Amino acid sequence: MNIAVAQSGGPTCAINASLVGVFKESLKESSIDAIFGSVNGIEGIINDNLVDLKNIILSNEDIELLRQTPSTVLGSCRYKLKDWEEDDTVYQKIVNCFKRRQIGAFFYIGGNDSMDTVKKLSEYTKQIGMDIKIIGIPKTIDNDLCVTDHSPGFGSAAKYVAATMQEIIRDSSVYSMPSVTIVEIMGRHAGWLTASSVVLHTNIETAPHLIYVPECEFSIESFLHDVENEMAKHKAVIVAISEGIEISEESSSFQSGVVDSFGHKYLSGIGKYLENVVRSKIGCKVRSIELNVMQRCSSHICSKTDIDESEQIGAAGVRCALKGETGKVMVFKRVNDMPYMVTIDSVDANKIANFEKYLPENYISPAKNNITNEAINYFMPLIQGELNIVMENGLPKHFTIKESVLK
Amino acid sequence: MNIAVAQSGGPTCAINASLVGVFKESLKESSIDAIFGSVNGIEGIINDNLVDLKNIILSNEDIELLRQTPSTVLGSCRYKLKDWEEDDTVYQKIVNCFKRRQIGAFFYIGGNDSMDTVKKLSEYTKQIGMDIKIIGIPKTIDNDLCVTDHSPGFGSAAKYVAATMQEIIRDSSVYSMPSVTIVEIMGRHAGWLTASSVVLHTNIETAPHLIYVPECEFSIESFLHDVENEMAKHKAVIVAISEGIEISEESSSFQSGVVDSFGHKYLSGIGKYLENVVRSKIGCKVRSIELNVMQRCSSHICSKTDIDESEQIGAAGVRCALKGETGKVMVFKRVNDMPYMVTIDSVDANKIANFEKYLPENYISPAKNNITNEAINYFMPLIQGELNIVMENGLPKHFTIKESVLK
Repeated sequence: MNIAVAQSGGPTCAINASLVGVFKESLKESSIDAIFGSVNGIEGIINDNLVDLKNIILSNEDIELLRQTPSTVLGSCRYKLKDWEEDDTVYQKIVNCFKRRQIGAFFYIGGNDSMDTVKKLSEYTKQIGMDIKIIGIPKTIDNDLCVTDHSPGFGSAAKYVAATMQEIIRDSSVYSMPSVTIVEIMGRHAGWLTASSVVLHTNIETAPHLIYVPECEFSIESFLHDVENEMAKHKAVIVAISEGIEISEESSSFQSGVVDSFGHKYLSGIGKYLENVVRSKIGCKVRSIELNVMQRCSSHICSKTDIDESEQIGAAGVRCALKGETGKVMVFKRVNDMPYMVTIDSVDANKIANFEKYLPENYISPAKNNITNEAINYFMPLIQGELNIVMENGLPKHFTIKESVLK
Repeated sequence: MNIAVAQSGGPTCAINASLVGVFKESLKESSIDAIFGSVNGIEGIINDNLVDLKNIILSNEDIELLRQTPSTVLGSCRYKLKDWEEDDTVYQKIVNCFKRRQIGAFFYIGGNDSMDTVKKLSEYTKQIGMDIKIIGIPKTIDNDLCVTDHSPGFGSAAKYVAATMQEIIRDSSVYSMPSVTIVEIMGRHAGWLTASSVVLHTNIETAPHLIYVPECEFSIESFLHDVENEMAKHKAVIVAISEGIEISEESSSFQSGVVDSFGHKYLSGIGKYLENVVRSKIGCKVRSIELNVMQRCSSHICSKTDIDESEQIGAAGVRCALKGETGKVMVFKRVNDMPYMVTIDSVDANKIANFEKYLPENYISPAKNNITNEAINYFMPLIQGELNIVMENGLPKHFTIKESVLK
């Protein structure tokens, strides 16, 4: 039998490591012949745009490079399958591709939408009596997938955020005048990544002094009060804030009140907005910093724990399919914090698809403006370890596939 | 005799390495007793706020940590001395501190303003017949200091920019739809740091496809034309642009036309502005990314060449003072590109203070929208090598001095 693997959703540092896991485990199996890579997620299956990964990943060095290359080497997509009961045109295309290519197992590395695809596709193929195993390999820097202890890609993002926040603390502390620095971190509905900056409190840092997550109500009035309180204690106040915060006083004005010279709405983020609030209401030196896509692609400071686990969970997906399971998503179960230990299990995709996992209440301080030390034991193991990054001309060497090969 | 050292101006990854250079070289010299650190640059001398560095830097591990800690461990300032012919009140305070602390040499690690301080202070002390050696140790991520081949701190900033840009390229290339990504890089008048992203062209990258520096005229019309040209060739177009670009059509409208709900002017950067221009005029997927302070403080990916050289130029400053020179700034002279070799020399501070060095014409493409391969030999040696970063709890370990010790 042949197998196919695809990558989907927003980039992380660990999606290619999961691809490595699927690829290496499949190579070991004599029952598996071709290992197809689907270009641009499920779109590659729909359009029969597949590459033979054995012709692309050619050496141990290629594997090492793939592990340290961020984003998705096979491209990605944002594609949500319709219900097959409504319209199965696309499902037929997918099934045709599976048949034509003699694909007996399909591995989908992705976030919530991709797990929805795993669920629907496994239901559809069961219903038409097709023997194919559909397995989901999770990934997301948001860490908001249910059931799994954490998501591949999150640890590296958290390591980047903490390391960068620590450097921003050094940078912001040099002058004698008081200042406020607001760091905007990804996370629309769940504050995991923002909250993970709490790990700095175990080192020498008192910062971030304030941490705001979208799980809590946020009011400008309380925010200004919090900032003034911290300014009384610290010369350089550092604030970590999730991009998904909703302001209770004037719900969406920070994304709609401003129009540029083209009459275009100014989609400034919450960080920039609060920078202007602080400047206007407190009047001190203030700066906002958006960590932007660097949070999800800074492989040069990825977490070795994350990369290793992401490879392992990819490999476990292959073993799960070979055991005859389908419609499953692979998950981590934490056995212990310190020493850190996880096992890998599989659960029905319908327990993960279309759900979101939020920060537990005991991770959030009573005043809703910081993260508790209880969260540190959860986050800390996930950011441990560094890869020995292969460098070329002074820069990390990346593995890429020529655009012409990907069509 | 005692000596004093101070750090000034905007943070870089290499200012503490230069402090290490001054400290270690001074320790070797039996003629030097106390090694004072001045808190917050020249302000520490003015206010007699000094610390004894022998009580603070206590071990080889401390030295290793200092070398990998960004920003200024002694704090910084933005203080420009008035002409002493007009008013020498502050000069008298400085001289009193030098006398009271028996300081025979003062080393000022900083940028252009600090070199102006070196110039004025050496002239003043000569004029009053005081025997003190005033030596400048340059630093700036802008690389715009004259005479010296390059400035300490620049190589690490350039390495961060190139490594991050490479990751942004991976991140932006995943979807099948066309897109434009605009990366805004520091540099108000000189485009060195933005231009350094050209090193990616020696690796596998065609990006950045467009590079704009403040040395050239910039028009929105040409920019849109350039972007459309590149979109015909590449799916994901990457633009590097200096923050200091001035738009010829509507000189300052991008910083003044927009007012937020507080009636505050929206100081969006050029990147955000051009993002809105592209969205409005071309209509494709577009994102802007501001590399912000991470450019000057991301020590976790610093250049070993930069850190080593920054330490060496600090040490050379001490030897220069011991030879009896004053009013000098230490500079690099490049002997060869490949194999890379530099020597360290000293020049009169008045040849450096208050001048700016711009990109040479042959580094800029005829169409003024890219950087030539001739520039690569200049930039490439500066980003080579990595420190073996000491980690703690999964993060780089920083060296800091307690706020209470710094007063």
